[in-house]
Amino acid sequence: MAADGQRMKAVFSLPRSVRWVSGELYILDQTQIPSHIVEERQQSVEQVWDSIKRLKVRGAPAIGITGAYGLLLGLKDMTGLSADRFIGELERRADFLNTARPTAVNLKWALARMVKRARECKGKDSTIIYNHLVEEALQIHDEDKKLCRRIGEHGAKLIDNGMGILTHCNAGALAVSELGTALAPIYIAHGRGVRVRVYADETRPLLQGARLTAWELQQVGVNVTLICDNMAAHIISQGLVNLIIVGADRVAANGDVANKIGTMGLAIISRHFSIPFYVACPYSTIDFSTPKGSKIIIEEREEAEVTHCGSCTVAPEGVLVRNPAFDITPNELITGLITERGIIRPPYDSNLRKAFEEKAMKE
Amino acid sequence: MAADGQRMKAVFSLPRSVRWVSGELYILDQTQIPSHIVEERQQSVEQVWDSIKRLKVRGAPAIGITGAYGLLLGLKDMTGLSADRFIGELERRADFLNTARPTAVNLKWALARMVKRARECKGKDSTIIYNHLVEEALQIHDEDKKLCRRIGEHGAKLIDNGMGILTHCNAGALAVSELGTALAPIYIAHGRGVRVRVYADETRPLLQGARLTAWELQQVGVNVTLICDNMAAHIISQGLVNLIIVGADRVAANGDVANKIGTMGLAIISRHFSIPFYVACPYSTIDFSTPKGSKIIIEEREEAEVTHCGSCTVAPEGVLVRNPAFDITPNELITGLITERGIIRPPYDSNLRKAFEEKAMKE
Repeated sequence: MAADGQRMKAVFSLPRSVRWVSGELYILDQTQIPSHIVEERQQSVEQVWDSIKRLKVRGAPAIGITGAYGLLLGLKDMTGLSADRFIGELERRADFLNTARPTAVNLKWALARMVKRARECKGKDSTIIYNHLVEEALQIHDEDKKLCRRIGEHGAKLIDNGMGILTHCNAGALAVSELGTALAPIYIAHGRGVRVRVYADETRPLLQGARLTAWELQQVGVNVTLICDNMAAHIISQGLVNLIIVGADRVAANGDVANKIGTMGLAIISRHFSIPFYVACPYSTIDFSTPKGSKIIIEEREEAEVTHCGSCTVAPEGVLVRNPAFDITPNELITGLITERGIIRPPYDSNLRKAFEEKAMKE
Repeated sequence: MAADGQRMKAVFSLPRSVRWVSGELYILDQTQIPSHIVEERQQSVEQVWDSIKRLKVRGAPAIGITGAYGLLLGLKDMTGLSADRFIGELERRADFLNTARPTAVNLKWALARMVKRARECKGKDSTIIYNHLVEEALQIHDEDKKLCRRIGEHGAKLIDNGMGILTHCNAGALAVSELGTALAPIYIAHGRGVRVRVYADETRPLLQGARLTAWELQQVGVNVTLICDNMAAHIISQGLVNLIIVGADRVAANGDVANKIGTMGLAIISRHFSIPFYVACPYSTIDFSTPKGSKIIIEEREEAEVTHCGSCTVAPEGVLVRNPAFDITPNELITGLITERGIIRPPYDSNLRKAFEEKAMKE
């Protein structure tokens, strides 16, 4: 029991991806993990845009939180402006930040929420609006923590002692405020003394699974085995995996899921072997304004990510390259969506609307 | 037509993985491609073992050929021995070389063929036995060229103008004597002026797709696009792939295929999208003494291949790792086996025996 307490404490002491301290924004530079653990102070909206673009901060919820805080940088100095001009400035910044990554919906959602809050303050003094915005960003951040805990609680019910769980990319503590989405159920189970074996896909090209998921699970003593993405089918075929949980960058109204490239292949393989395939995500990831997955823009990233691995060149010069950052897993391959409101099961179209009625109404 | 002739000439001028020149053995060090194109002279059986182990020479047929030549190194100096002791020495060397890689059956097959040839010479002088062995190795090498051409001819019938073809790992010219197995149909089609787009899976951990397949296709002007392994499902879902061809390290009597890790996942994905999935292999890859895939030993390679990418560390220290080098694709996922005797289709059990009756009888 004491050991369980220790384990749970460790889980909640995982490094934070984003911190707002005395009006200053710090992000943990995830491009350097696990070699270097470095927090970087963000000093301008442009720097935040760049940090999101370069994946120094990544994970749909974490970039939402970072975006909200990012809007505030330098804005305090503009409180001399009229409320109209102040809000105009905010909107300009929100539009700009929103271009950093097109697929993750949480960024768009968090920025829109900040702009809405400001608009609701119309007529008030810019200083007051600024204070409201700080409050809103802190709220977004705090809510995310609560959502992750609830996702963890709901998802932990799926996990039994001795299970093998496979995950892809990093939807862990580093991708959100704490605990993670896909990893939250694992952390909660682990904290309660449930023994699990986690298989982490390395997740080429940027190796978030190898660099981040393996690292953060290791920090708290979860048994984690690293595999290359193309080994998942073999590992599953050997009966080593009982459950797959991944995160999401955007969930369409019909339950189609945009997530890190490789997710769809894994879902197809899990269906072949009849292994349950779950997607963990908070409500901010659900996009009722996108009816189905085929409407989601897939970010295509630069070729060098594929032709290089860290600083090493791994391909001949001049070779053609495709580098889609995401793929769309069709809803029929998904066993359930683990959300803060419980596990949503098919048919997603109606069940998502039912679970998040007030959100569906607005979008 | 002149252009076609040029193209076909280029195809047959691809770099050679193994060369036997005036009694000396040279291999193209494939661990250095594409950065450096270096031939390495092999001077002892131990060096050959090491070259096979480290994948300086790789690809099931190429290591068979290398194994056959490798047996000969330094053996000329032993022709003073009695025939019995000479053959004993040969057998000892064959047993040793056979331990370099357990999954590919061609190595075992080529070594056994050399030993058999020697035994057939019993009573003859050791110098004469040596000459017979050189002849046998040259024959194995020459036969491989012919087999590849025939595989290319049979497979080319599957390829139409404008097709997208996906391949995994490297079953190209570098993996055999020339042309390749999986790539042979592509080379023959290309040589005849058929336009194809090839997608090459990079093939972690050792990136044979990125380093070797992309490189050799590029050498002769085939349109090749490099993708990470986990992108295949997305690329296929976009309708860009009409055909998948891979090689094989061992084919069981029932048609189950051992090939580079990731092959099975790709086969499952191709079935999901109803894309034909072919395996190209010469008869030396078919192992009638292995009734089904589950009987094949899967080589597990060292962890550093996964925790590193070239010289870069990509994972936290001390993380657990799995590194199976191969997986087993069950026969029911395979549309056909492209062999030198035509395309074998299910049921493989009977059709493989029919096509290779004399081999099946012997094993």
